[in-house]
Amino acid sequence: MRTLITHIKQLHQVEQETENRTRVSGKDMAVVPFLEDAWLLIENGHIHSFGAMSSVPETQVSEHINASGRHVLPTWVDSHTHLVFAAPRDGEFVDRIKGASYEEIARKGGGILNSARRLADMDEQQLYEQSLQRLLRVMGQGTGAIEIKSGYGLSLEAEMKMLRVIRRLKEHVPIPVKASFLAAHAYPMEYRENKEAYIDLIINEMLPRVAGEGLADYMDVFCEQGFFGVPETERLLEAGWKHGLKPKIHANQLHYSGGVQVGVKHNALSVDHLECVGDDEINALKGRNTMPVLLPGAAFFLGIQYQPARRIIDAGLPVCLATDYNPGSCPSGNVPLLLSIACTQLKMTPEEAVNAVTINGAAALELEKEMGTIKVGKRGSVIITERMPSLAHIPYDFGNSPVFKVVYN
Amino acid sequence: MRTLITHIKQLHQVEQETENRTRVSGKDMAVVPFLEDAWLLIENGHIHSFGAMSSVPETQVSEHINASGRHVLPTWVDSHTHLVFAAPRDGEFVDRIKGASYEEIARKGGGILNSARRLADMDEQQLYEQSLQRLLRVMGQGTGAIEIKSGYGLSLEAEMKMLRVIRRLKEHVPIPVKASFLAAHAYPMEYRENKEAYIDLIINEMLPRVAGEGLADYMDVFCEQGFFGVPETERLLEAGWKHGLKPKIHANQLHYSGGVQVGVKHNALSVDHLECVGDDEINALKGRNTMPVLLPGAAFFLGIQYQPARRIIDAGLPVCLATDYNPGSCPSGNVPLLLSIACTQLKMTPEEAVNAVTINGAAALELEKEMGTIKVGKRGSVIITERMPSLAHIPYDFGNSPVFKVVYN
Repeated sequence: MRTLITHIKQLHQVEQETENRTRVSGKDMAVVPFLEDAWLLIENGHIHSFGAMSSVPETQVSEHINASGRHVLPTWVDSHTHLVFAAPRDGEFVDRIKGASYEEIARKGGGILNSARRLADMDEQQLYEQSLQRLLRVMGQGTGAIEIKSGYGLSLEAEMKMLRVIRRLKEHVPIPVKASFLAAHAYPMEYRENKEAYIDLIINEMLPRVAGEGLADYMDVFCEQGFFGVPETERLLEAGWKHGLKPKIHANQLHYSGGVQVGVKHNALSVDHLECVGDDEINALKGRNTMPVLLPGAAFFLGIQYQPARRIIDAGLPVCLATDYNPGSCPSGNVPLLLSIACTQLKMTPEEAVNAVTINGAAALELEKEMGTIKVGKRGSVIITERMPSLAHIPYDFGNSPVFKVVYN
Repeated sequence: MRTLITHIKQLHQVEQETENRTRVSGKDMAVVPFLEDAWLLIENGHIHSFGAMSSVPETQVSEHINASGRHVLPTWVDSHTHLVFAAPRDGEFVDRIKGASYEEIARKGGGILNSARRLADMDEQQLYEQSLQRLLRVMGQGTGAIEIKSGYGLSLEAEMKMLRVIRRLKEHVPIPVKASFLAAHAYPMEYRENKEAYIDLIINEMLPRVAGEGLADYMDVFCEQGFFGVPETERLLEAGWKHGLKPKIHANQLHYSGGVQVGVKHNALSVDHLECVGDDEINALKGRNTMPVLLPGAAFFLGIQYQPARRIIDAGLPVCLATDYNPGSCPSGNVPLLLSIACTQLKMTPEEAVNAVTINGAAALELEKEMGTIKVGKRGSVIITERMPSLAHIPYDFGNSPVFKVVYN
């Protein structure tokens, strides 16, 4: 199988074989390297070669795509989603419009516990089928690798059900899917008065089963006031590490919770959300591998403050963007719209936003060797855009799909 | 031609023949009347009858649609767009992200003048073709009536070109299209030092030609500091009235400009934008027919303050929403996404938002007799949604199209 794409207006995020960029930070985020009037050859699922049209190869191919007027770039890497869920929560959406806060809804047994009740009642096959529909839809919007979390189970049985569904998704789609174990998403109602017992359940019963069956790639904790505090997070992350699960955690969405610091301390692959970021959080992240992941779609949907992306980038740090696709705080996995929100509200430039969901997204999922840039040997998964004047047109043209075609492998 | 839609989960915005609702205001905006488990019969382009499934007629039809699990509602009426333009302005989008304000860009000859240069250079046929593509796209997103403004011409010749393009669009699509004459959108560069001469040109040369050829339905003025002040707006609106053109004006986007008051004084059909609304503006609108039209897509895209929709509704006034589709401040004509922005940012309920783009949209375009509600005799233009649990799902599921099918006439 050989696919040749020719007459590409601009081929973005190109990287030479001698380069070894694993993520971009600070000022470097403003640059997306590109080739003008280019061709790209994909062979047996991998990028075989690329170059300027003046050097286009004459070769037999199984598919030839003329991309005249179109941009080509690596598929998006969406490093934070809760795409496996049983039911939308549009009722709570209306409650919030009428004045209830996300935290108030959670305290009354809505929010995550609402999703957990609905998920517990749903048959595994049905859960799989509707999750697959969502995954195929975001793939059509250009997503070429994705992380999906458990965390609407909150019992051994239901967490295992979610993680088995994620495993089936992995097996059935042509893109990398990573699973994060997030039993520490909320305390189930029956543990509200005995929170330690729930943490013990996660550590002593769930983790061994989940890790034993190889159902998770990462360990996640919702580290937040009213959810899991710093000491509980530490215990959970240490337990995860013992089973070989690296942390990727929820931090600093609603408060200066210490989540960033505890994530860095425990070598989290990423700390995600970050509406609340000050000097302490920035200093904690400097010089560390932990990736700051911003989820502005959730801030948009909840109508809360946006993440200080400029401050983080201007401090020389990298920024990754992810959708947070979930039924409560961001019922959208649409990455192009995420880019529009990042540019218009967080004042990220289009290049910064594209870096944040390609090379930095790949870093946040340990996929830097196979995704995130156009480099010989990496996966041949690319987005071919509609005809458009510039890369900036993707976030500019908000509410319209920029995707003409997505090529997977 | 008879189309029968059956098993509709909810048929929204139903109105009995004895009712005569022309717009909804204040608390009434919270209600969208609906029938559960309903059918709808469209005959020769008009709504023939509707009712509960228990009374579904046995009749010969040319098309039968089973809408099980789906909602049906009247198509959107988008009462404020600049959909005819020559080129995107993604360069200015990047300049704004980097810190330039919309007004600074305009002062340097960007903004509207940029669009005017590009439009002057474009062949009328090409302008028509690409505008038609945009119109067909928003029709696919559920828009069933639309207003389009001139205002990127700013010379007799180019304004006439725009208005002829709008007339051709009217003739070629099966939805009502209304044209507003907006030569008073900005002062052309060559009139910067002699603004009176440009107003004279509009009044003495453009208006007679435009009105004489029946090219416009309405008169529009960008009443704003740095654009057209209150005295200039008054002269222009009076001149428009003399030619039979009712006013629909741009008011209070960037400043408390007096635009609302001057619009009301001159019996404007609508005053549009309204980021800056205080007690004076609200009092001016009370008891008047002038419709307040909010354009939150532009506030989103520019990253400026949102319109105080709650304050306007809570004062007992009606609110209409429109997209403002234009290349500078809102390159999107996607009404479902507009509803998401209105609900999440302006805290309008889904019902208020739907009223704002159906019955109140129709009122803002004098289409209340044919659009805006499901009523016997009105146009048979309806949206059939994807399968969804509630009407609230439309703004909730942001970034995904709620439209399964649009039926026109």
